[in-house]
Amino acid sequence: MQFELSKEYIDRVEQLIEDKKDQSLKDILYDLHPADIAELLDALSEDDGKYLYLLLEGDLASDVLVEIPEDDRKRFLEEMPAEVIARQYIEYMDTDDAADVLGELSDEKQEEIISFINDEEHADEITELLSYDEDTAGGIMAAELVAVDEKWSVQTCLKEIGRQAEDIDEIYYVYVINNERKLKGILSLKKLIQYPTSTLISNIYFKDVISIHIDASREEVARQMEKYDLVALPVVDSEGHLKGRITIDDVVDIIREEAEKDYQMASGIVGDVELSDSIFSVTRARLPWLFIGLLGGILGAIVISGNEKALEKIPNMVFFIPLIGAMAGNVGVQSSSIVVQSLASGASNLQSIWMKLLKEFSVALIAAFSLASLLLIFNLFFNIGNSGQQLAYTVSFSLFIVVIFASLFGTFIPLFLNKLKIDPALATGPFITTLNDIMGLLVYMLIGKFLF
Amino acid sequence: MQFELSKEYIDRVEQLIEDKKDQSLKDILYDLHPADIAELLDALSEDDGKYLYLLLEGDLASDVLVEIPEDDRKRFLEEMPAEVIARQYIEYMDTDDAADVLGELSDEKQEEIISFINDEEHADEITELLSYDEDTAGGIMAAELVAVDEKWSVQTCLKEIGRQAEDIDEIYYVYVINNERKLKGILSLKKLIQYPTSTLISNIYFKDVISIHIDASREEVARQMEKYDLVALPVVDSEGHLKGRITIDDVVDIIREEAEKDYQMASGIVGDVELSDSIFSVTRARLPWLFIGLLGGILGAIVISGNEKALEKIPNMVFFIPLIGAMAGNVGVQSSSIVVQSLASGASNLQSIWMKLLKEFSVALIAAFSLASLLLIFNLFFNIGNSGQQLAYTVSFSLFIVVIFASLFGTFIPLFLNKLKIDPALATGPFITTLNDIMGLLVYMLIGKFLF
Repeated sequence: MQFELSKEYIDRVEQLIEDKKDQSLKDILYDLHPADIAELLDALSEDDGKYLYLLLEGDLASDVLVEIPEDDRKRFLEEMPAEVIARQYIEYMDTDDAADVLGELSDEKQEEIISFINDEEHADEITELLSYDEDTAGGIMAAELVAVDEKWSVQTCLKEIGRQAEDIDEIYYVYVINNERKLKGILSLKKLIQYPTSTLISNIYFKDVISIHIDASREEVARQMEKYDLVALPVVDSEGHLKGRITIDDVVDIIREEAEKDYQMASGIVGDVELSDSIFSVTRARLPWLFIGLLGGILGAIVISGNEKALEKIPNMVFFIPLIGAMAGNVGVQSSSIVVQSLASGASNLQSIWMKLLKEFSVALIAAFSLASLLLIFNLFFNIGNSGQQLAYTVSFSLFIVVIFASLFGTFIPLFLNKLKIDPALATGPFITTLNDIMGLLVYMLIGKFLF
Repeated sequence: MQFELSKEYIDRVEQLIEDKKDQSLKDILYDLHPADIAELLDALSEDDGKYLYLLLEGDLASDVLVEIPEDDRKRFLEEMPAEVIARQYIEYMDTDDAADVLGELSDEKQEEIISFINDEEHADEITELLSYDEDTAGGIMAAELVAVDEKWSVQTCLKEIGRQAEDIDEIYYVYVINNERKLKGILSLKKLIQYPTSTLISNIYFKDVISIHIDASREEVARQMEKYDLVALPVVDSEGHLKGRITIDDVVDIIREEAEKDYQMASGIVGDVELSDSIFSVTRARLPWLFIGLLGGILGAIVISGNEKALEKIPNMVFFIPLIGAMAGNVGVQSSSIVVQSLASGASNLQSIWMKLLKEFSVALIAAFSLASLLLIFNLFFNIGNSGQQLAYTVSFSLFIVVIFASLFGTFIPLFLNKLKIDPALATGPFITTLNDIMGLLVYMLIGKFLF
């Protein structure tokens, strides 16, 4: 049952496409999971991929369409007539997938496609979902869910579920509503099966249901579902009306994306890029932070050139310029990333900002002392370039001060950004490295001047 | 229904604890979700937290125990008699949670606790789960699941589910097995409800079930569940016998941990640390990489001191030492993190290693050209420290070469580590920065000597 995309497998498929063996290809495709088909399409040339994709029909075609990378899907749909998109793909999709796919297209194309959808209710639901910001609960939820009236019996319920559940892949929970469609509670299928069919729903449903407001951010959705171990989360409006539900598979993607976003920021990459993206998008994602780094380097050059006279007197100070800069950068990145990660995992904000700085200060003291001592011992023993004791003391003292400053900057700046409701991840990586580089140079030059 | 841990709320709880108002405290606790109680306990002092926790009983006590941080739980359980742990907590837990909690304790304590469990089947299942490596499917799975025989009817099935499901929170799927307990397929509850009770299971179950081998790594488990959008994944042994199932809530934690691990490595932090951890553990997690950085800095000092004579002739080259080092580091981190992330998200390995390097080379060329030109224009216009045209050309040419080398190192080294089955994330952050720092210095010095 494991799918393995081997070189031989792809060669065989390519040969079948070349020979136009449509039936053999179909036999292969209809044995695969949509996610595997998407992987196969990705491995083929664009023309071969398209040929293969167009052999698919109905549910499978729409399931695969949802799985392929956004850029490819967009390119493919832009060439397709709106009517074909509506009738062959969108009509088969769940409302949340349909809204996601349509959301990638222009407003005119969206409207045109929706006008071709035969099922009016489906079209209305998709239109409503498209009206929500895609970064909110409303933008992630699906309209498909099973809702039962609190006044019903288990028997009515089961019958109604059979009817409603037709276009829903998985049920997970049944939502209990009142006659105004306000969410009252939930009921697991397990419970429905366990009770006699004459039992009233109102006697067995669970009232402490966890729900989320339609305007809540997607980070909030992910946090709630992760914290409470939920597989589905009902979405309500301000009056408590049940509007949709969010399933865990969509949230898994959000959790990964959020974690990757912080990682990318820390690495100085803007936006979501992969090895397989075009040279242009990779370059565009990387250049901005590199320019900032360049600017930092130029500032560094200005700092050193401003201390030219001092350096002429003690030229050997130069040897340790990279060491001071690199250590400042490393320490700063460590501190900032611990803060960013603690904030991202929703660590309680109760411990006051001063407590955090105090603690970081203690860690920095220990690190600074260890590193400075080690460097001092090394320099006194090996005396690089005959720099002498005085330089050894200057460098170690500077390192000590720089490590403490760098770690405090690394802690304080993201906390400060967070207070200002700016993404604290901005303060990691190249930003903090560059800042600490310059700070390190300044401190080193100042101490050099002072001690010599 | 939203739980908000305010300062006032905590103050009130602390007051009630001080006044020993046990009934009021219980009223508060029994209205909360276990995850919220764990959050509350975390915000209290250790003594208050323990007092509050001991007011809990049965299911709720064991649910909360699973939610609290590992260190706290370990400390708490070490003081508890084995019999109390077995009878008051472990007996109420699902097998996977029980195995996780016991796995944190010493082997002797584990055995002692298990010997006190009344339910022999439960004890055996836990013992079996404890025998699997915690980083494999066997170490994550729970023994609780609903399995039905392929020869049964829907009616027998529903009755059997009612019986088996008693100690299972959520069912999600019913697994269909043969008389040797080999996994044959799955059946959704929805389907069971939709068909007449006389229908035979063998006629309605889904045979293409996705399962995972008991020895598969937890990364593999996460990848499968994420790729195929599963909420539960059955675990089988080499003969195909159904051994347990893994649910999505456990995998969500794995996905987050994996993403965070890469982030931490890239930030030069060893292991999982948070702002709230002790000063000692934070220091221990950070010092190793800092020592490596220090070593790199010392090597850098040796490189510069080896070129002392050259620098005496062109002292202004010194100005741009930090710039070259920082840019080499920034570019290297970008390249390596794109590789690491692409590998982590399971990007297909089909595109050959040479194609990847070629592409990275193109991106590097564009970046190197832009950065070097910009720096040249800046230097020619502003002429920092009267360095003259010759230095301007030297610096820009060096930057050009250094950026290309740094990006190739950043791409090649993680790919190479991955080939060797070493975690490529090791090559991000401080490692690549340090390496590229030194490489940058060498290139700069060499070009300086050559051009002047």
